[in-house]
Amino acid sequence: MTQNILILPGDGIGPEIVAEATRLLNALKDRFGLAVELEEAPIGGAGYDAAGQPLPDETLALARAADAILLGAVGGPRYDQLAWELRPERGLLAIRSELALFSNLRPAILYPQLASASALKPEIVGGLDIMILRELTGGAYFGKPRGIQTREDGVREGFNTIIYSEPEIERIVRSGFEIAMKRDRRLCSVDKANVLEVSQLWREVAERVAKDYPKVALSHMYVDNAAMQLVRAPKQFDVIVTENMFGDILSDAAAMLTGSIGMLPSASLDAQGKGMYEPIHGSAPDIAGQGVANPLATLLSVAMMLRYTLNEEAQAARVEAAVGRVLDQGLRTADIWTEGCRKVGTREMGEAVVAAL
Amino acid sequence: MTQNILILPGDGIGPEIVAEATRLLNALKDRFGLAVELEEAPIGGAGYDAAGQPLPDETLALARAADAILLGAVGGPRYDQLAWELRPERGLLAIRSELALFSNLRPAILYPQLASASALKPEIVGGLDIMILRELTGGAYFGKPRGIQTREDGVREGFNTIIYSEPEIERIVRSGFEIAMKRDRRLCSVDKANVLEVSQLWREVAERVAKDYPKVALSHMYVDNAAMQLVRAPKQFDVIVTENMFGDILSDAAAMLTGSIGMLPSASLDAQGKGMYEPIHGSAPDIAGQGVANPLATLLSVAMMLRYTLNEEAQAARVEAAVGRVLDQGLRTADIWTEGCRKVGTREMGEAVVAAL
Ligand SMILES: CC(C)[C@H](C(=O)O)[C@@H](O)C(=O)O
Ligand SMILES: CC(C)[C@H](C(=O)O)[C@@H](O)C(=O)O
Repeated sequence: MTQNILILPGDGIGPEIVAEATRLLNALKDRFGLAVELEEAPIGGAGYDAAGQPLPDETLALARAADAILLGAVGGPRYDQLAWELRPERGLLAIRSELALFSNLRPAILYPQLASASALKPEIVGGLDIMILRELTGGAYFGKPRGIQTREDGVREGFNTIIYSEPEIERIVRSGFEIAMKRDRRLCSVDKANVLEVSQLWREVAERVAKDYPKVALSHMYVDNAAMQLVRAPKQFDVIVTENMFGDILSDAAAMLTGSIGMLPSASLDAQGKGMYEPIHGSAPDIAGQGVANPLATLLSVAMMLRYTLNEEAQAARVEAAVGRVLDQGLRTADIWTEGCRKVGTREMGEAVVAAL
Repeated sequence: MTQNILILPGDGIGPEIVAEATRLLNALKDRFGLAVELEEAPIGGAGYDAAGQPLPDETLALARAADAILLGAVGGPRYDQLAWELRPERGLLAIRSELALFSNLRPAILYPQLASASALKPEIVGGLDIMILRELTGGAYFGKPRGIQTREDGVREGFNTIIYSEPEIERIVRSGFEIAMKRDRRLCSVDKANVLEVSQLWREVAERVAKDYPKVALSHMYVDNAAMQLVRAPKQFDVIVTENMFGDILSDAAAMLTGSIGMLPSASLDAQGKGMYEPIHGSAPDIAGQGVANPLATLLSVAMMLRYTLNEEAQAARVEAAVGRVLDQGLRTADIWTEGCRKVGTREMGEAVVAAL
């Protein structure tokens, strides 16, 4: 049974890094019998250029039909002056919402070969392996009412609504428990329940769902404290589950702890496990088109796709092992390069991983 | 002209650390001619114990009448089961709001004597000195509508409103520019303008106010990127200005970068410069009553009070110099102690600072 993968290169370095993912998928297909078909479509600024919309109708239709999606990155200064609804980010938010990809997995892993790249001391981050689970289709990102309006007294005000229903909280918290069951069985739910009512409901639901997972130790932490603890002692965490905006902030901080944000993949899943996979880093317009971007986060996103959506655990492990081997060989793109290693470009890195499969 | 200082010990370690601040203020009065009168009142859990409310009416009246306020900390497990409106935190939020203390200054400074306590590498944090200016009386903390309600279909949902008016944004951003003028003239405004309308208005107002400060370089950064940059290269910042919730999260992360959160003071000011001063750390119920808490953040909060509200720059500098001398002498409370230093308790540390004045 052949599965369909939709590739969305997007903007900036997106096309370059996604080209290496295509190379990898074709190698898995030709040499290791992976049964996939690839298709490509524009999104973000590229969607606007091609069809006048950051998420063209045709791209959305292909995304709905696909079994899994691989995204490069969206955004760039060329599109900064566009109206709000035409901006590249709107395409990203729209596809998340349209496909109900509510469960965003963001691992923060320190690769031993790259330990020295972290801003933190080795004893603080050595061996770091945490999973941040971010709710991706609710909260202030999508809540209504929202807008900028002029009050009766002539004063303008801007407003957004942080809103979560009980089922929305339950399904993401449940995902958190499921993931924790496969790891160290510790789940930390992050909220701001001492200030926000929406967080009080969040905490109440988390407590209720916990009854179904007696083997998982659930703890609660305020988001300000979580930001501190990630800097002070990140290894105290196993799985963190949190709402959209807090997850946006904390997962970026956690990713940066590893010092190798060019290495980190992510998955955004719906209730059936169908998903969109993308590197955590952005479109890096400053280095786009130069062939120097690090493709490894994208290749590791392919591994996540193989594991979580395509149910090809052996192929996933094969890709991850190949990436490890290439790092052991001392190959590094510019972002992770240190003295004594060999600096390579995007393509050479992608080819090396394929060779190491 | 004698100025009135209201002391609010609060809960946990609050009374202990505030006792050392009282010792310091009395020494400045007796030996260096500082013209102040001190009064004390309960807040937080202590307010609930004394008068059934986290912010007793009498405390609020005294706070309104005072020239400046010094707060220890609020909160503790004894009060965790109280109804929402009676919780210690509500007292803190209420006094901020009632006194219109919209401008919250949170310096993140690395003390050279304590450099080794940071989780970050010395080259990343050495010499760190940034000021985070957090809006303190708006946003989701106070926005309405808010609550938990049952929809028509029987599903419960929790909701809060992030809301800022143009004048609210303007006054905090203006404070940011004023502070930047006295420092390195670089102001970074942190928002999430690629997702939230309230942030779009924030950014627009910041751009407009910037025209009045041509000597200050204004930049904008998304909050997720700011969280990353604080970990990656915190010294790139001079002054950061941001809304209430983002400021809560980022200032705690920034404080933790220094590794000495027991050292960091804060100021919350109204439009006239009247203010409430408090250490950044919390009430630490686990060590309350043991005489081991670090009083230095509270003593440095007194220094901020002398500088910003009482206009006693020379006295402020005297306090800060005394703290520096005590650190040079190798005195350390347990939280900042390292091999080779002398471990002292709360009172001995307070006395040492007074002796070093
Ligand atoms: C581009 C932006 C809208 C997006 C977000 O905030 O979700 C990004 O920061 C991310 O984390 O994927
Ligand atoms: C105790 C809590 C309500 C408070 C806040 O979130 O403002 C605290 O975290 C702070 O930063 O002063």
